[in-house]
Amino acid sequence: MGTDMVWRRQRLFTPGPTPIPDRVQEAMAAPIVYHRGPDFPVFLTHLIRDLKLVLPTTDDTFLLSCAGTGAMEAGIVNCLSHGDRVIVVSAGQFGEKWVDLCRAYGTDVKVLDFPWGEPADPSRLEKALHQYPDTKAVLATHSETSTGVMHDIEALGRIVGKTDALFLVDGISSVVAHALPTTKWGVDIAVTASQKGLMLPPGLAAITISDRAWEAAGRSDLPRAYLDLDRYRKALSEGRGPATLPVTLMAGLRASLDIILEQGMEAIWQQHEIQARAVRGAAQALCLTCFAASPSNALTAIGLPEEIDGLALMESMRTDFGVVVGGGLGDLRGKIIRISNLGYVDDLDVLTAVSALEMGLQKIGWQFQAGAGVGVAEGIIGEGKQ
Amino acid sequence: MGTDMVWRRQRLFTPGPTPIPDRVQEAMAAPIVYHRGPDFPVFLTHLIRDLKLVLPTTDDTFLLSCAGTGAMEAGIVNCLSHGDRVIVVSAGQFGEKWVDLCRAYGTDVKVLDFPWGEPADPSRLEKALHQYPDTKAVLATHSETSTGVMHDIEALGRIVGKTDALFLVDGISSVVAHALPTTKWGVDIAVTASQKGLMLPPGLAAITISDRAWEAAGRSDLPRAYLDLDRYRKALSEGRGPATLPVTLMAGLRASLDIILEQGMEAIWQQHEIQARAVRGAAQALCLTCFAASPSNALTAIGLPEEIDGLALMESMRTDFGVVVGGGLGDLRGKIIRISNLGYVDDLDVLTAVSALEMGLQKIGWQFQAGAGVGVAEGIIGEGKQ
Repeated sequence: MGTDMVWRRQRLFTPGPTPIPDRVQEAMAAPIVYHRGPDFPVFLTHLIRDLKLVLPTTDDTFLLSCAGTGAMEAGIVNCLSHGDRVIVVSAGQFGEKWVDLCRAYGTDVKVLDFPWGEPADPSRLEKALHQYPDTKAVLATHSETSTGVMHDIEALGRIVGKTDALFLVDGISSVVAHALPTTKWGVDIAVTASQKGLMLPPGLAAITISDRAWEAAGRSDLPRAYLDLDRYRKALSEGRGPATLPVTLMAGLRASLDIILEQGMEAIWQQHEIQARAVRGAAQALCLTCFAASPSNALTAIGLPEEIDGLALMESMRTDFGVVVGGGLGDLRGKIIRISNLGYVDDLDVLTAVSALEMGLQKIGWQFQAGAGVGVAEGIIGEGKQ
Repeated sequence: MGTDMVWRRQRLFTPGPTPIPDRVQEAMAAPIVYHRGPDFPVFLTHLIRDLKLVLPTTDDTFLLSCAGTGAMEAGIVNCLSHGDRVIVVSAGQFGEKWVDLCRAYGTDVKVLDFPWGEPADPSRLEKALHQYPDTKAVLATHSETSTGVMHDIEALGRIVGKTDALFLVDGISSVVAHALPTTKWGVDIAVTASQKGLMLPPGLAAITISDRAWEAAGRSDLPRAYLDLDRYRKALSEGRGPATLPVTLMAGLRASLDIILEQGMEAIWQQHEIQARAVRGAAQALCLTCFAASPSNALTAIGLPEEIDGLALMESMRTDFGVVVGGGLGDLRGKIIRISNLGYVDDLDVLTAVSALEMGLQKIGWQFQAGAGVGVAEGIIGEGKQ
């Protein structure tokens, strides 16, 4: 959009939106289809069938025309009631988003806060559930995009599973990068969005809902219409959506799922693991730190020492090399940078991000051996090819 | 999506989604941008400034990541409260959608029903407002997509304006085809969506809100978060959205607004008027009827005599010629077809729709002089070039 992007290639390493494969772009540029046409029901049914393989889930799954935030809200308004006690496991901006949404709908929110950069301690959740035995739902974040932390959803789910509470998980930046096996981990509602691992533009979200959550939906008293999953269920049984579906993004999702499932989920998860480990290794070789104590494979939050102005570093990476990374949000502004390997990012792309980081650091006077970060990253990526 | 679309060009004359200009497709295929990047605030501000010229409106306007239905819901949840009395002017499926959404949020709905195919009679609204002087809002549809009727929003607005009620208007299929001057007509909330006159894929919606509606929003007790316009207002003051915005659709909107505003709104409205009149003229020349007593310029609902099976007609148009039109919804299934000239449809495209209609009618044995419809349509379009 800016003039500096006209002649120079831009490389996105932001934790959403993420780069989009040519094949997906081409699918989205195909002539638009009519969502009431005769071919649409089969297209939609197969699309959702294949999307379920990605998490993986066997629960009912729906595609929504909204941002990930809308899908999170859908989880709340379908399964909870005014005044319900809920516990939010929060350790970053997206944990806070759960809190904000739950409060907007008048639930009684107990926030289980953890320091930004640290994973949630499951034993504290266990205590909280003992203290509040009437808890109707626990809400957590799988990959906390603001800090790069991966929370242990499996362990949290095991604890929630000992109670009657529902377990709602924001998988917006984790899905595709990590497995999120909903049934195995006791996740009743999982949500994700298009502009992350699914390699699509923003505007499409997905939500899974377990049988237990459907039962809760039958009792829920929160008003809803556009995000009412029961309307989606009824419409889907006729191969439709309850409102106009974003058919272009769905054509892109078809292409994206084809690419992902051709690779196979194990290979895709492994690729994200290796690439994220390569970025972490590079950061350490450059005498920087990994901000996340338990890192996500979707993105790497790199902690900067006080001498480094993160905003100046990002500005150099962006204007000198066209490399766009995420900055620190809230109190972390200028203190971390976030390099994502979500989306259409291959191994060599990751090395270009590390090179731009090295050259940006050199420009602002940080001392290290040039090439040290790339060398370590190459080693990690190369090992994966053995 | 279907195999029959692989080798043959498909022509969409559906009232959304509509065909998309190459220039818009190219804009959407450009590398994706980061919505937190430094260029984004200016881009977003200019985009909304220019969108406001299309309706036209001077009210606060926001872009939402949802279908048009979501924007209608946003109008309700921001300005109304549980138990509020509202009057819905309903004469088709999209009037019924207002009723459905208002009921989902617990408002006390009085439905002012008119027969499908007829425009609302303003004097009945006047009587209803006398009968229910505590009415908090009147909700109406500008172009009723299910019947092809254009309701007289100006006249309805004049009547609502004599009371304290707010006036909410669904402009989803009317905007671009018709003027919807919000302030002049006393419209407090107008909503539209991307996949109609704006020539974009579905997934982006817009909403305008008047000062009076903002005041009502301050008193409204309905829970809201994702669709909370106050969050949009605060975020927009920093050039952002409260959640991830659909940046690709917005890049398309930039291109679409450039095309529309280069033509000028007067020329665009006139083009829709001439094209819709050409289709209506053709229908009459083919001994069919115009279903709408007061027709919209966004689409033409063609009434079919009992001898003609509308589904067979549509099937021939689609499979023999790749021409996709809208069918009758609900009780009108098989009894009307809807030919839209919304979106990237030029004069000659309109003639191809009429030709496909003629050949479809011939195939199912309807008697008329071949070319009669095209001839009349050519005459109407040709007059416009004098």
